[in-house]
Amino acid sequence: MDFAQYFPIWDKLNANQQERIRSVSDLRKFKSGTLLHDGSPDCLGMLLVRSGQLRAYLLSDEGREVTICRFFEMDICLFSASCVMPNMQFNIFIEAEKDSEVWIIPACLYQNLMDESIAISNYSHSLISNHFSELMWLMEQIMWKSFDKRLAAFLLEESAVENTLSLKITHEKIANHMGTAREVVTRMLRYFQSEGMVTLTRGAVDIADRKRLLELSE
Amino acid sequence: MDFAQYFPIWDKLNANQQERIRSVSDLRKFKSGTLLHDGSPDCLGMLLVRSGQLRAYLLSDEGREVTICRFFEMDICLFSASCVMPNMQFNIFIEAEKDSEVWIIPACLYQNLMDESIAISNYSHSLISNHFSELMWLMEQIMWKSFDKRLAAFLLEESAVENTLSLKITHEKIANHMGTAREVVTRMLRYFQSEGMVTLTRGAVDIADRKRLLELSE
Repeated sequence: MDFAQYFPIWDKLNANQQERIRSVSDLRKFKSGTLLHDGSPDCLGMLLVRSGQLRAYLLSDEGREVTICRFFEMDICLFSASCVMPNMQFNIFIEAEKDSEVWIIPACLYQNLMDESIAISNYSHSLISNHFSELMWLMEQIMWKSFDKRLAAFLLEESAVENTLSLKITHEKIANHMGTAREVVTRMLRYFQSEGMVTLTRGAVDIADRKRLLELSE
Repeated sequence: MDFAQYFPIWDKLNANQQERIRSVSDLRKFKSGTLLHDGSPDCLGMLLVRSGQLRAYLLSDEGREVTICRFFEMDICLFSASCVMPNMQFNIFIEAEKDSEVWIIPACLYQNLMDESIAISNYSHSLISNHFSELMWLMEQIMWKSFDKRLAAFLLEESAVENTLSLKITHEKIANHMGTAREVVTRMLRYFQSEGMVTLTRGAVDIADRKRLLELSE
């Protein structure tokens, strides 16, 4: 499979546009844990994921994190191209959560394409609309859902993403995803364990009662 | 002044597009307090504010509110046109905060224009990008800024919007803007009063020390 199979709306671009975007897009590899974008106003470019997994997150002054969204195979990430997102604030961090292969599409080219191709422009609009919608959902969760429900939902999502009931994840990492302190996560996980919903071992959370977690999350 | 003066990027539309959009846009008046959009998936259309002030907010199951953004003269609101925002969740409420005159632009026409005009498509992209950026800012505030800072920032913003140091607003209303309980607002305002930053009277909050509120908010 090559670039054309991964790039969304490829068929809606003309041959000239296809050639321009393909010729300047640079395939790079990032080890798990690598920071691709560090919240600076640098305009790295759009990221198109070939394999692996990226995570976009916010970072507070005190070093607390909260996950905004994740990008999987064939996803395009605009957050690393602040110049394409007018008035975007530059506080989003992006890291590789797994070993990843990512095409970097120069923002200036993408900007040019947005000015000449309605398909690209409308596609970008729908991408941002999706992110906006997800961010609204996340904000509702944070504001109004109690932490036990949020944690149950997070464990289930993580289980679906990794396709396993045995999550290799530390309490610290969970806290970073959810924008809270490690102690809060540990306390709640211990409660879940006492209720038979999970089993805790060093560096892992095993889901013991998926059905009850699901009921709790809803 | 007529529609053409209020509609952004009017000059980038051709005569045919201008005529289509002007002929179907309906000017309506809403009394302060009127709900224009009630979180349902109904696609009311885009809103273009001629005068007055609109507020978009989220509402929790328990009836708590939090303000997402406000729209003033010449602003366009897309949230009332879920059909133009792919995958948008339908939980945004929109109310007139003041007596307002608003043009309603049918969503189907706007959708058509997005498919034929790059100017409209890119403009919509930048609108959503702005909202996304604001929502990120709001989320950071909520997650990481202590409530005293948020409240100080809110009072100063309100003061700028209303162009007065004497805010005619109840504690209940402030709580609705900020997604918290009235008691929390009252407690903090009393603390502000004890510190000489505000003076509280029935139905009003007077800003007594703007400089200190500013320092606190930063």
